Amino acid sequence: MNDTDRPWIQTVSLTPPSLQNNTADAERLIGALKDRLQTDVVHLDLDLLKELPDRLRKWGYRVCCLLFRDRDCWRVTAITRVDDPHPLAGLAVDLGTTRVALRLVDLSDGRCLAENGFDNPQLAVAPDVLARIHFAENPDGLSQLNDLIIAGLNRAIEKLCHAAGLEAHRVYAVSVAGNTAMTHLFLGLDPRWIIREPYIPVVNKPDIFKATQLGLAVAPSARALIFPNVGSYFGGDLIAGILYSGLHRRTDAAILVDVGTNAEVILGNQDWLIACAGAAGPALEGGVTAMGMMAAPGAVDRIRIDPRTRAFEIHTIEDQPPRGICGSGVIDLAAQLFLSGMVDIRGKLVPAAGGQRLKEIDGLAHLVVVPADQSATGSELTISQADIDSLIRSKAAMYTILETITSSVGMQPEELTTFYVAGTFGSFIDPRSAICIGMLPDLPMGSYQSLGNSSLGGASRALTSAGCLEEIDRIRDRITYLELNVNQDFMNRFSAAKFLPHTDTARFPSVEKWRKPS
Amino acid sequence: MNDTDRPWIQTVSLTPPSLQNNTADAERLIGALKDRLQTDVVHLDLDLLKELPDRLRKWGYRVCCLLFRDRDCWRVTAITRVDDPHPLAGLAVDLGTTRVALRLVDLSDGRCLAENGFDNPQLAVAPDVLARIHFAENPDGLSQLNDLIIAGLNRAIEKLCHAAGLEAHRVYAVSVAGNTAMTHLFLGLDPRWIIREPYIPVVNKPDIFKATQLGLAVAPSARALIFPNVGSYFGGDLIAGILYSGLHRRTDAAILVDVGTNAEVILGNQDWLIACAGAAGPALEGGVTAMGMMAAPGAVDRIRIDPRTRAFEIHTIEDQPPRGICGSGVIDLAAQLFLSGMVDIRGKLVPAAGGQRLKEIDGLAHLVVVPADQSATGSELTISQADIDSLIRSKAAMYTILETITSSVGMQPEELTTFYVAGTFGSFIDPRSAICIGMLPDLPMGSYQSLGNSSLGGASRALTSAGCLEEIDRIRDRITYLELNVNQDFMNRFSAAKFLPHTDTARFPSVEKWRKPS
Repeated sequence: MNDTDRPWIQTVSLTPPSLQNNTADAERLIGALKDRLQTDVVHLDLDLLKELPDRLRKWGYRVCCLLFRDRDCWRVTAITRVDDPHPLAGLAVDLGTTRVALRLVDLSDGRCLAENGFDNPQLAVAPDVLARIHFAENPDGLSQLNDLIIAGLNRAIEKLCHAAGLEAHRVYAVSVAGNTAMTHLFLGLDPRWIIREPYIPVVNKPDIFKATQLGLAVAPSARALIFPNVGSYFGGDLIAGILYSGLHRRTDAAILVDVGTNAEVILGNQDWLIACAGAAGPALEGGVTAMGMMAAPGAVDRIRIDPRTRAFEIHTIEDQPPRGICGSGVIDLAAQLFLSGMVDIRGKLVPAAGGQRLKEIDGLAHLVVVPADQSATGSELTISQADIDSLIRSKAAMYTILETITSSVGMQPEELTTFYVAGTFGSFIDPRSAICIGMLPDLPMGSYQSLGNSSLGGASRALTSAGCLEEIDRIRDRITYLELNVNQDFMNRFSAAKFLPHTDTARFPSVEKWRKPS
Repeated sequence: MNDTDRPWIQTVSLTPPSLQNNTADAERLIGALKDRLQTDVVHLDLDLLKELPDRLRKWGYRVCCLLFRDRDCWRVTAITRVDDPHPLAGLAVDLGTTRVALRLVDLSDGRCLAENGFDNPQLAVAPDVLARIHFAENPDGLSQLNDLIIAGLNRAIEKLCHAAGLEAHRVYAVSVAGNTAMTHLFLGLDPRWIIREPYIPVVNKPDIFKATQLGLAVAPSARALIFPNVGSYFGGDLIAGILYSGLHRRTDAAILVDVGTNAEVILGNQDWLIACAGAAGPALEGGVTAMGMMAAPGAVDRIRIDPRTRAFEIHTIEDQPPRGICGSGVIDLAAQLFLSGMVDIRGKLVPAAGGQRLKEIDGLAHLVVVPADQSATGSELTISQADIDSLIRSKAAMYTILETITSSVGMQPEELTTFYVAGTFGSFIDPRSAICIGMLPDLPMGSYQSLGNSSLGGASRALTSAGCLEEIDRIRDRITYLELNVNQDFMNRFSAAKFLPHTDTARFPSVEKWRKPS
């Protein structure tokens, strides 16, 4: 990349001052930068101003400037030697309710210098968004939550910089993408009204703040870009995801799905973006069954059932003895049970097909997935009829949301050509299994694209893209939020989707083929 | 004044949020302010953002906002109750090398709430600009000087607010006008290059900073406007003076003179501004003669000599026994000595006219102004021939500067119709005496206008004027600095001006009349 591709890094050679040209140091530098950037407003922080006279003279009026593109101006955030061997670093943060992910980026080329993550330390006082908002209402509750996340970030920044062989004061830009509540807690803003009708955030588009003002231990002049939200239920993490997917630049419509406790869905192209979110159910995160667990070593993540022998082939993360089942494992399991005839189209366990794996516990049908002697815990891992029912409600909700959002623009889910799946869910899920249970539409496998952590990806992208803030604001402003009204239409769709794969089997021709292998 | 006259105070009534209108609190407020101000960019500080949800709900979505007009945006700096009985205050500072003056202003109407001043505490380590710049080169010298002035200001702010019955956190705007060196020390910027060829300040037009970032103990969101400089020798105090005088808005040319150690002169109108500065000599400040002192109780500030009896009529500040003579007293004395024939047109004491007041001390002619038995010190107060010579050089330099600057636009000093005199010099000097010795041109008395502390006046004005920053920048950008080249032309003018009132007596017809009273 050169200075035109990456206008935020500018190498300037200034005419040294003379009696004929006695402009001050700051205006000399700013004038050159304005010329380069063809812009009217370039600001220079007091900290940098203090160091400027020395640096200009020491380096012969030839310096490298790092700039941050704010909404209405450029800001110089670093002035370094032209041949400085240390990278100018930026920090991208995906501020999850459960997990926080960080990536250190070389601002000159976008290269990842180091990555890490940590469990959101706010979990220690309140497990989920709702509980944290209530906790914030205690005296000092908000500042406690704010302190927890800031301290956690600072610890992680230190480790990250250490891993990359950098000092934290070489981090000159920060971008943070989180849901609306996490962003509020990160900024120290009262989240109380997010969960109360009419659900009002304190701010939609936060200004660009100094990262140190937010408590982050990085360069004093570093700026923090906080991804904006559309409202209480559509946060900056999703905007970052859209940015990362490129949905907003496509000529044909595509869809982006991020599944967590909520399923968040965005359909759109370069002209329009429609978003909706709905409770798809924690079943999809592996959070419901007694044996459910997060994706971690020992979690069952892949299952194959031989359609003839009904023998289970279990795969676990890192090949550890199984200790639970994660989201992708649950979906695999449901798909395989269905394909092997062990559950019927209503999702009910079929006694005749279950054989010895079926047993009754507390009057409820259970299927043994891993016998006690093969599990890490010494107890058998089972899934109950209630677990399967719950999964079916979740997958039906998911499909109904997809159907609702596509139909709002006169499309069917099956007409999509590109389907982005974000998050760990997207990374691990087997689209074939998800199609098999009718959770995702029956598209060619090539239509499904896993984005990984799209929120972190978008936050990283924002650090090395010139007009990014403008692009982010444009995405935000263009989003139409579709309220999921649970009306008769929705209920009809939901009821039809509560079958495996769907009442209308014609929508899932592949599943028909998979069920009856030729 | 209403909100149109003073756009920086806006009372807004917002539509309360609803499910149909769920814009965030910040955007709801900012949207209303943008509409009101017909502007694109309004920023809200994090501190205010934190308090916003509570305040909006507590006050029924009707609030009073104080805004600061930055160069490229408006910034909300306070959100208060509509019927808040406490004034929103602003602080104007004239940052003098010797004396610092402060004025607390009601931002709603520009009314002065309280005023005070203090000796610049930097005097304790270095008396003048040059010495301070050298002191700043010591290790920690700069931060020591910076600490001194900031601590001094904070003490004064506290007293000032106490006097006005306000808390210091009700000070929401600060404006600071000082010379280039004092402004650098106030901002903590290295002044080293100001005094070294080619005389380069660190910055000409400082950004708007948060006052707290500069160390001032005022409202966290308060912004500080630092008056820009034209260069090392033309500072923000003079820009403030121009703003206050209105020179830059006149259709006819006028002149503004600020006399301290340097004489600073600005000639101009709405189309152009020419500035120059020269060493007019400390004689004019009462700083040269052995009996010289600052204007303070006991200083001789007015003298009349009876032209027939040559009896001295002495007036002192606060009618205290005389202990010295201040600037206006020295000029009065010289004028009266000349009118009474006690000095000749070359400024030499006339032995025949001096009588018993003349005596020789260390081989040098002295004139006794106050005999020992009438002075506060018990010693006689005298002025020497050398003192008078020095005064004559100073007044000649002053007149030469006036002649040089007016001639640069094809005018004579005598053609001026309005002559602003700033500073304590301007407040106390008797223009008649100054004309009499040929220091100021022979204009009708009504042409002379004393501005008082024009720097403080301009700083105060900046707090309650909508487009002030723009106006200040325009003044700064329009100034042409005229280098006083001590060439043959200058020396010829200077030599001609070294007579009382001038070689060319036709320029001073009034003086001829005063000398020969009809």
